[in-house]
Amino acid sequence: MENNVLNKIVICGVGLIGGSFALALRRAGAVGSVVGVGRSTAALARARELGIIDAASGNAPAELAAALDGAALVLLAAPVAQTEAILAALRPHLQAGTVVTDAGSTKGDVVAAARRALGDKVGQFVPGHPIAGRESNGPDAAIVDLYQGKKTVLTPLAENRAEDVERVAAAWRACGAIIHQLTPQEHDKVFAAVSHLPHLLAYALVDDIARKPHADLLFQYAASGFRDFTRIAGSSPEMWRDISLANQAALLAELDAYMAQLTGLRASLAAGDGAALAGVYSNAQRARQQWIEAIEAAEAPQSKDQAE
Amino acid sequence: MENNVLNKIVICGVGLIGGSFALALRRAGAVGSVVGVGRSTAALARARELGIIDAASGNAPAELAAALDGAALVLLAAPVAQTEAILAALRPHLQAGTVVTDAGSTKGDVVAAARRALGDKVGQFVPGHPIAGRESNGPDAAIVDLYQGKKTVLTPLAENRAEDVERVAAAWRACGAIIHQLTPQEHDKVFAAVSHLPHLLAYALVDDIARKPHADLLFQYAASGFRDFTRIAGSSPEMWRDISLANQAALLAELDAYMAQLTGLRASLAAGDGAALAGVYSNAQRARQQWIEAIEAAEAPQSKDQAE
Repeated sequence: MENNVLNKIVICGVGLIGGSFALALRRAGAVGSVVGVGRSTAALARARELGIIDAASGNAPAELAAALDGAALVLLAAPVAQTEAILAALRPHLQAGTVVTDAGSTKGDVVAAARRALGDKVGQFVPGHPIAGRESNGPDAAIVDLYQGKKTVLTPLAENRAEDVERVAAAWRACGAIIHQLTPQEHDKVFAAVSHLPHLLAYALVDDIARKPHADLLFQYAASGFRDFTRIAGSSPEMWRDISLANQAALLAELDAYMAQLTGLRASLAAGDGAALAGVYSNAQRARQQWIEAIEAAEAPQSKDQAE
Repeated sequence: MENNVLNKIVICGVGLIGGSFALALRRAGAVGSVVGVGRSTAALARARELGIIDAASGNAPAELAAALDGAALVLLAAPVAQTEAILAALRPHLQAGTVVTDAGSTKGDVVAAARRALGDKVGQFVPGHPIAGRESNGPDAAIVDLYQGKKTVLTPLAENRAEDVERVAAAWRACGAIIHQLTPQEHDKVFAAVSHLPHLLAYALVDDIARKPHADLLFQYAASGFRDFTRIAGSSPEMWRDISLANQAALLAELDAYMAQLTGLRASLAAGDGAALAGVYSNAQRARQQWIEAIEAAEAPQSKDQAE
């Protein structure tokens, strides 16, 4: 590789995440050829039409061997539940010069799957999580700017070589992302709190309302606040079932803390304790305002990478 | 009144809600003069500068008597906790031809306050709730289009004359709103579920996160899903304390149902029961999708009033 140009990359899963990665690398002139691997020949054909990939490959061993031959980087961008099976299929064909990364929303389970599937080749796997997404999916959803100004969290393993971590980081930077590093455990605790729990809570509210006998009346009066609060309940149920189970322990801990918070608020409400309610509401309003201001300040210049 | 033009209206509270009402009536040519009543002389002066009101009045009895003299309509648009005190101050000066309405987010408590404050004049009070708002407040936040295409729910009393209810409805229609009618009890149950509970849940989550020792790390990775989920936690803590207490019984019932829902989801998660999680998530995703489609269908033509 000269000047950070990857001669050849392989994308397992040519939907929103993998497709946007390929498009962004192409625009940056950071990649030679892109091979798409997947189960759906229709999706692969569409990805080729859209200029996301140069060549398509099925999952048969001979095809995978050809796809991986001489590849600098492999991105796993299929549903997280398939990680172990895909890595196991790749392993026999994985050359010493190839680095593999992923885009899964959980990391502890992905690392465990990688250790089982890759064995002594696990050092070639650098776990990652781009913090970007949309509600739509498939090759047609892919956009070149998906990662622009967004964070990508890498959770390197002790076995990773520094230059392999840097190869993955450089690819994400070429897509416009800002690189952060956490341990897999830190990552999963953080995202249980700020992403996985809110998804569960939003699904829970909509389901709760939808099952009431007067659901139609209720939905008739739901307005913009409800729309925003429940937007994440429009996400893929299968994907979020898998994420919930993959991050079970951390999500249970966050859910328990939240239920304790609700139990306290319920007691304040039942007691008519306006000061206690106002204390929680005010603290939340203030903290959120500070957070929004910090985001806006950070996004304003958006010039240099952080924390790598 | 000829052609639904109100000769004179009085706005108690010249902020977002009252100011937008006055601006919209003026644009529609539906009002002669507008008198603003309030405690803050600065807000009244600003409302006059902005062309929201023609004249300002303080709360002294002689001033209120002059403000109410010959008024066709009075809108209460001050914090709900002040409703009873304002109505009690207006009562001695309330002429037989004047109709009073309000814009409070809860109705059971407002009706009770109106009965106490107005006594045998309660028939002149038509309770209302425009389903519109923004996070900003004060006269400068007022906008002429705030109610355009939005619902206003009226919860008439048995004592109201039909023509008085119609006077209030016509004024809101002139602002572009679509009139719905519910009983005060129905209103409070509906909004406990689709508005008051989500606010409490959003405040609870942000407060929960903000109090953790690693709050700064967590907020660093909160992204657009978190931003939307918690947008309503940016609302006024005092206003939502008052709403929570004013609608205590209905909100407790909805909170209990939601906590039972979370208890069930927690058990499914702890048991690793992916089918149960997927059942809740899928039902929510489907119900929300249907709701969004129904909203979009309703908002597309947006031509005629409903349900009056």
